[in-house]
Amino acid sequence: MHTFSEKSLRLQAELSAFMDEYIYPNEKAYAEQLHQAENRFAPLPLMDSLKEKAKSKGLWNLFVPESHNQHCNHGGLNNYDYAPLAEMMGRVTWSPEVFNCNAPDTGNMEVLMNYASAEQQSQWLPPLLNGEIRSSYAMTEPQVASSDATNIELRIEKQGDNWVLNGRKWFITGAMYERTKLFIVMGKSDPENPNRHKQQTQVLVPKDTHGIQLIRPLTTLGYDDAPIGHAEIVFDNVRVPLNNVLLGEGRGFEIAQGRLGPGRMHHCMRLIGAAQRSLELACQRAASRTTFGRPLSKHQSVREDISKSFSEIEMARLLVLKTSHKMDQHGVPASVDMIAATKTTVPRLVQNIIDRCMQIHGAGGLTEDYFMAEAFNYARWCRQADGPDQVHQMALGKKVIDRFSDVQAPQPEQVS
Amino acid sequence: MHTFSEKSLRLQAELSAFMDEYIYPNEKAYAEQLHQAENRFAPLPLMDSLKEKAKSKGLWNLFVPESHNQHCNHGGLNNYDYAPLAEMMGRVTWSPEVFNCNAPDTGNMEVLMNYASAEQQSQWLPPLLNGEIRSSYAMTEPQVASSDATNIELRIEKQGDNWVLNGRKWFITGAMYERTKLFIVMGKSDPENPNRHKQQTQVLVPKDTHGIQLIRPLTTLGYDDAPIGHAEIVFDNVRVPLNNVLLGEGRGFEIAQGRLGPGRMHHCMRLIGAAQRSLELACQRAASRTTFGRPLSKHQSVREDISKSFSEIEMARLLVLKTSHKMDQHGVPASVDMIAATKTTVPRLVQNIIDRCMQIHGAGGLTEDYFMAEAFNYARWCRQADGPDQVHQMALGKKVIDRFSDVQAPQPEQVS
Amino acid sequence: MHTFSEKSLRLQAELSAFMDEYIYPNEKAYAEQLHQAENRFAPLPLMDSLKEKAKSKGLWNLFVPESHNQHCNHGGLNNYDYAPLAEMMGRVTWSPEVFNCNAPDTGNMEVLMNYASAEQQSQWLPPLLNGEIRSSYAMTEPQVASSDATNIELRIEKQGDNWVLNGRKWFITGAMYERTKLFIVMGKSDPENPNRHKQQTQVLVPKDTHGIQLIRPLTTLGYDDAPIGHAEIVFDNVRVPLNNVLLGEGRGFEIAQGRLGPGRMHHCMRLIGAAQRSLELACQRAASRTTFGRPLSKHQSVREDISKSFSEIEMARLLVLKTSHKMDQHGVPASVDMIAATKTTVPRLVQNIIDRCMQIHGAGGLTEDYFMAEAFNYARWCRQADGPDQVHQMALGKKVIDRFSDVQAPQPEQVS
Amino acid sequence: MHTFSEKSLRLQAELSAFMDEYIYPNEKAYAEQLHQAENRFAPLPLMDSLKEKAKSKGLWNLFVPESHNQHCNHGGLNNYDYAPLAEMMGRVTWSPEVFNCNAPDTGNMEVLMNYASAEQQSQWLPPLLNGEIRSSYAMTEPQVASSDATNIELRIEKQGDNWVLNGRKWFITGAMYERTKLFIVMGKSDPENPNRHKQQTQVLVPKDTHGIQLIRPLTTLGYDDAPIGHAEIVFDNVRVPLNNVLLGEGRGFEIAQGRLGPGRMHHCMRLIGAAQRSLELACQRAASRTTFGRPLSKHQSVREDISKSFSEIEMARLLVLKTSHKMDQHGVPASVDMIAATKTTVPRLVQNIIDRCMQIHGAGGLTEDYFMAEAFNYARWCRQADGPDQVHQMALGKKVIDRFSDVQAPQPEQVS
Ligand SMILES: Cc1cc2nc3c(=O)[nH]c(=O)nc-3n(C[C@H](O)[C@H](O)[C@H](O)COP(=O)(O)OP(=O)(O)OC[C@H]3O[C@@H](n4cnc5c(N)ncnc54)[C@H](O)[C@@H]3O)c2cc1C
Ligand SMILES: Cc1cc2nc3c(=O)[nH]c(=O)nc-3n(C[C@H](O)[C@H](O)[C@H](O)COP(=O)(O)OP(=O)(O)OC[C@H]3O[C@@H](n4cnc5c(N)ncnc54)[C@H](O)[C@@H]3O)c2cc1C
Ligand SMILES: Cc1cc2nc3c(=O)[nH]c(=O)nc-3n(C[C@H](O)[C@H](O)[C@H](O)COP(=O)(O)OP(=O)(O)OC[C@H]3O[C@@H](n4cnc5c(N)ncnc54)[C@H](O)[C@@H]3O)c2cc1C
Ligand SMILES: Cc1cc2nc3c(=O)[nH]c(=O)nc-3n(C[C@H](O)[C@H](O)[C@H](O)COP(=O)(O)OP(=O)(O)OC[C@H]3O[C@@H](n4cnc5c(N)ncnc54)[C@H](O)[C@@H]3O)c2cc1C
Repeated sequence: MHTFSEKSLRLQAELSAFMDEYIYPNEKAYAEQLHQAENRFAPLPLMDSLKEKAKSKGLWNLFVPESHNQHCNHGGLNNYDYAPLAEMMGRVTWSPEVFNCNAPDTGNMEVLMNYASAEQQSQWLPPLLNGEIRSSYAMTEPQVASSDATNIELRIEKQGDNWVLNGRKWFITGAMYERTKLFIVMGKSDPENPNRHKQQTQVLVPKDTHGIQLIRPLTTLGYDDAPIGHAEIVFDNVRVPLNNVLLGEGRGFEIAQGRLGPGRMHHCMRLIGAAQRSLELACQRAASRTTFGRPLSKHQSVREDISKSFSEIEMARLLVLKTSHKMDQHGVPASVDMIAATKTTVPRLVQNIIDRCMQIHGAGGLTEDYFMAEAFNYARWCRQADGPDQVHQMALGKKVIDRFSDVQAPQPEQVS
Repeated sequence: MHTFSEKSLRLQAELSAFMDEYIYPNEKAYAEQLHQAENRFAPLPLMDSLKEKAKSKGLWNLFVPESHNQHCNHGGLNNYDYAPLAEMMGRVTWSPEVFNCNAPDTGNMEVLMNYASAEQQSQWLPPLLNGEIRSSYAMTEPQVASSDATNIELRIEKQGDNWVLNGRKWFITGAMYERTKLFIVMGKSDPENPNRHKQQTQVLVPKDTHGIQLIRPLTTLGYDDAPIGHAEIVFDNVRVPLNNVLLGEGRGFEIAQGRLGPGRMHHCMRLIGAAQRSLELACQRAASRTTFGRPLSKHQSVREDISKSFSEIEMARLLVLKTSHKMDQHGVPASVDMIAATKTTVPRLVQNIIDRCMQIHGAGGLTEDYFMAEAFNYARWCRQADGPDQVHQMALGKKVIDRFSDVQAPQPEQVS
Repeated sequence: MHTFSEKSLRLQAELSAFMDEYIYPNEKAYAEQLHQAENRFAPLPLMDSLKEKAKSKGLWNLFVPESHNQHCNHGGLNNYDYAPLAEMMGRVTWSPEVFNCNAPDTGNMEVLMNYASAEQQSQWLPPLLNGEIRSSYAMTEPQVASSDATNIELRIEKQGDNWVLNGRKWFITGAMYERTKLFIVMGKSDPENPNRHKQQTQVLVPKDTHGIQLIRPLTTLGYDDAPIGHAEIVFDNVRVPLNNVLLGEGRGFEIAQGRLGPGRMHHCMRLIGAAQRSLELACQRAASRTTFGRPLSKHQSVREDISKSFSEIEMARLLVLKTSHKMDQHGVPASVDMIAATKTTVPRLVQNIIDRCMQIHGAGGLTEDYFMAEAFNYARWCRQADGPDQVHQMALGKKVIDRFSDVQAPQPEQVS
Repeated sequence: MHTFSEKSLRLQAELSAFMDEYIYPNEKAYAEQLHQAENRFAPLPLMDSLKEKAKSKGLWNLFVPESHNQHCNHGGLNNYDYAPLAEMMGRVTWSPEVFNCNAPDTGNMEVLMNYASAEQQSQWLPPLLNGEIRSSYAMTEPQVASSDATNIELRIEKQGDNWVLNGRKWFITGAMYERTKLFIVMGKSDPENPNRHKQQTQVLVPKDTHGIQLIRPLTTLGYDDAPIGHAEIVFDNVRVPLNNVLLGEGRGFEIAQGRLGPGRMHHCMRLIGAAQRSLELACQRAASRTTFGRPLSKHQSVREDISKSFSEIEMARLLVLKTSHKMDQHGVPASVDMIAATKTTVPRLVQNIIDRCMQIHGAGGLTEDYFMAEAFNYARWCRQADGPDQVHQMALGKKVIDRFSDVQAPQPEQVS
């Protein structure tokens, strides 16, 4: 529909060529390096060399929006123009890091761009934008239902010149990764505040601060998503200076709310790519295997599965594009309806599409010989990460009802 | 995404105002006129007066494409610009006729514009475009699986100066309608032709030709779709002059193939409107009724249903728009993939959306007090009309597999 | 699994023979009589003659349970043994009345057997059991969400020797039917009672009582379910003697609760028959039509649809049987979990099965040439009648959670 | 419905007590032993001690049917009586081995009981029945679509006194396990035989035979199912004596057909247990966490999810029981319809149920802290193992169509 900008089109061509030349041919090597790694959470040499290549080709920090274009070389890309690029990266699960475009760092860098002080920015943004270090965003806790952010219990107390943190977090993406140096931590600084949305504060905590224990990596459906991974962490009297506070005391909830637009869309964009690639693989498989006297491609139910998957990908992609466009035009707050619609729809659709494509591959489809099983896991956990679908549907449902309920409701006919 | 043309935007505003002023307020009156009609297939006075109003406001023949703009006053609208207008009409099942935009006439007029001789056009197009008469397209037969057009058995034989037709058709939309004067009939003129796609011919048959018997109106899910309706018809030695042939002898299949793009999309556009209105009704209902201590709008599953419906409507609408745009840019033949994707996806989605919205209304949702039950029926039969979804998925599945199967297929790893 | 009793097996054979000899061959005649009827809600001559035949063959009042066997000639049948009989009747939508086994009368007779005084019983049961008259159960109201029975507003006031009823009901099955003579009406006699479940009273109201106005028949998905139908009714100062109260003042809610077991299961039993017959029709169709070079029966997706439908019918039937057995062994109150599970599962499954079977029939599948479209409507409204699925799921969900939540919950691992 | 035998009821009680006393309390220890194992495919000490306990309690070889009761101490259990026992074992993924009831050994032992010579039986059955060794069944090959067994390519040639095997297999469950000593291998001995079902032969191959290379373990959705696992294997000039043939040359297909009944049902039985346990966990979670002011157990959509899951488990369990009963009464060949219906229905239902239960747990539900994620994987691969659902639906669909298509098909009405 809308055409992409010249810049986006050019970058799409360059990224596509890069994928062909450097990424797909390295999938096997990457899997092997990870498989053989002593420490699955150490940076992989292959990743580092690919990052250098991407940087040298100008395929770097593509997520940076125009509003923050001082932080990139390409002048900034709006969400709409970034979408097809992120989709392409989604075709290989680990490839976004190659372009410094991986979760959760893109979201974290945006938080810093939007909410950090100049001093904080100058300390943390350059190495993040340069891909030297990685970061984590630590909100979820194992002992409470964290989809309701007001349940968060980690204590952040002011003691003298310090914030003192005590509590337990889990599912902290990136925290296991050796390259990660910074945690953005949300906790309760004022648990008795009658305004439940003013009790929270966010602080910047260097990962090597005394009192931080990395308990263990967590898995989803058997995957540890190494080397980035998801960690359980204990904060045991962890102390950071008072000026590590982000935005200001009691404003943690506000940041949490603001953070979530683009990051969620990036997941959806990448999932489109994952689905599209799965579909292509399934087509190749269907064309090349034969059962009961005919190629799979001629079994009518296989055709229906391919047809459905194609159609659903089209719809999912269009939804992502419309939402991206709305964010570009009207900002995140005005777009929360479309963001919620997209976030609660695309991962589930993509999970089902990949499920079908795996099935067409037979037993092999479930293995690591193909990228589908891992992509399936990715789609599955996106129904939970950044808040479970149900909670977003609660908010969106309310909003839609409110929007239309003032219209005059027709009453059941009263004939008499 | 793409913006609509100025003209489309203006017409949207005018059509919306017209709906508010003349259509919604007349829904009850229309239902009553139809209910009390002696003959359910006679034109309704209310319809005629509304048509005059629409014509006088310039809301007439909105479906006419730019390529045929000699046939309308507005200069023609491409599919993309027409989509939001058709959607609006879809909010009231019977309203498209008010604007001379109803099925199957829009499709039939296009057939005439594209395939009829100058003489045929001058005879039939003006009264059709003027809304004086209606037309039918007669292909499907009760005794064969008609989704495979090569099964069609109605005989069309050349005898002297005439074509002689013998056979039985059913599900011929519009044929019961008293206003209908023209049938476009497909049959077999050359059943032994080794090329199965050259056996068919289409001829123009005035409805009042001797030998035509209207057997009965047919219902779907209990609805007769009066006054337009769907008829069973017997052709018993029906004779028409040789120059009533359309395009040429043996070219019936070609026309059948060409006919189907815009008509299918028009159904989908209208279904979006039907779904959207159902959603709005459901929101109003949810806001106004209370069970077990809370308004329906606060029961979480109601919110999830509303949220899902909103999201699915967004996707369906975008799919229709993309397909329309592709048709505008590249023509129907190049767009058959997107047309099939849309045709096999939207009616099913809309059926489910309306099902949910009816449920939120309780028992009343199933009645004729609301337009939902009839719209549900419309969505259901669109999964069959213009060819069942399965047949389109067969074709689309094949096409998608072919498209991607030449790509180098990754093989299961062969470690040794 | 469990074998059916000798009696049930014998009756199954007899009923099956009766269906073959008298019901299937009369389907067309029945449809025509109804179609041509001046008054669609008058008893049909064909029905009356079939009832005589059924009575003479001992296929009468098969629903009567052993506990009430004084009311039938066959000694009573428990729910389990009745299930296959009701399933058979479900194969022809209108056939249950032939055997005096139709809704809502079976449920109403049970109410009378269980809650009516001897005098009330002797007045109303004999003509009902004899099929001379029919009855209605009037609870739902158009202006409130009636799935929460405490919302009911119809006023029942004691004035002198009378109850005086004022209010509006709708969706009262059977009320339009000329044969119907009795309404069981639920209303509020004590709206200020702090116990919200003691505010309601039920009274017996002869249909011809002064002040009752039959407003109109209602349709669902285009069907009026004539001659039994569903009516909207106004009660305008309707007076009945005080001893027309059922069970006692303030005990209306208690009756409403007790009424619902067997009636709901009867719907589900019949729906199994509807689904089974649809499947059989689809098989016949698939075997007899050919598209694209092969019979439908060889298109893989048709086989998958048939296979799924077969499997789902098996499951649905087993669920009904288990629930019936539980009711026989432990009574209705102890079986509410299984009743809710069945009631919220079977109609939806059956709706989908019939949807698939209609699709295999092409356009014809949606018409009244087959019984499927009407059966589809039946399945659809069973998701709403006797309370919407959501409300039963609310109760069952709560019950299941309570049952298992006392078990020791494993906690997320706390490694440290 | 049917009651279980006294023996089954006694064993259910004993097994349940055993699970409580020895299995659930050891889940964490088992996970840790496996996690820390140098070789994930070596037998675990904990498993060995639990096996001793089970054996000493008489909870051993419970799968052995009455027809082979010489092979067990309990006199044999029919499928119906075994079903609730297998369900119980399914509550802990690794527990079936504790009772010598795990796949693929139960299926393999049955093959030996049914098809092996006395000599072959005396060599292999005692150690298998005693749990000393394990076995594998090797049919699937990576380079062909193995769901059509006639595609199998591994060559089995007679050379002198030996069969010589050359080819590649994969997804051979158990082959990685150190305890496994026997492979039952299917291959082609007579590829030119015009009867495509006589080309295959099955031979017994000791795992340590020269020429066998274990290439690698395979994963599904990230799980390696260690220690049993699934292997890729190369057979490179592997020689075994001629009398290692099973049943006879050219009879491999016959064995493959006969093998599959009980094994498939055992998977389904265990999956019911997995679903049931997931449901119980979800209930506990819903009762113990709170979001947005109410416990999860009061959010209506959570209740609906629980209600649906409960209902589906009931249906799935009943389907398994009916099929088991039919197999007991009429044998496997007469039960292929019900076996196919169960095999193609239960895994998919269970996958969805577990998906919902994981979602209710938040992010934690996807981890190994709960057994759900692994059980989800089990359900997913059961849609592929023992033949993909589509192939069984193909066969069942054909069978059902044939069954009903001889019935007189009603024709569309021909009014004239
Ligand atoms: C792979 C992955 C990566 C993640 N990365 C991070 C990260 O980097 N940093 C971080 O802080 N967190 C991260 N998370 C955690 C994620 O944000 C949380 O899982 C999510 O917010 C839900 O919190 P919870 O897990 O505590 O679930 P809960 O809050 O306990 O919710 C559990 C379930 O309850 C139900 N539920 C809750 N409320 C309602 C309602 N109103 N109506 C109906 N149902 C409801 C839903 O089914 C929901 O799924 C990650 C999660 C995953 C899976
Ligand atoms: C409301 C309505 C209006 C209509 N209006 C018109 C009209 O105006 N003019 C007109 O000519 N026709 C009209 N039709 C008819 C419509 O075009 C046909 O119904 C349609 O083409 C299918 O033909 P059929 O009904 O003969 O079904 P069949 O060809 O018998 O097909 C029946 C079913 O078989 C299955 N099937 C067939 N092929 C395959 C395959 N390859 N793979 C898998 N499954 C398959 C599908 O489930 C399909 O639904 C209308 C239909 C409806 C419902
Ligand atoms: C064909 C038919 C025959 C009938 N026959 C009779 C009859 O003979 N006598 C009689 O008295 N009644 C009859 N009924 C009416 C039936 O009992 C009611 O429709 C039903 O109880 C629901 O009441 P309602 O229609 O007022 O819907 P409402 O109570 O307004 O409910 C509407 C919807 O709200 C939603 N909802 C409500 N509560 C919740 C919740 N807690 N959580 C989530 N969602 C919720 C559901 O989606 C529900 O469908 C019949 C209905 C039909 C369709
Ligand atoms: C965990 C696991 C354990 C296993 N254990 C064993 C074992 O111990 N021993 C062993 O020999 N094998 C084992 N298998 C392999 C299993 O038996 C095969 O995967 C299965 O038979 C399918 O063969 P395939 O993988 O070659 O798929 P293919 O035959 O290539 O089929 C792939 C897909 O094609 C489609 N398809 C095929 N035919 C049709 C059709 N007619 N209509 C529509 N679609 C069709 C289906 O979607 C199917 O899933 C195991 C598999 C798994 C996942």
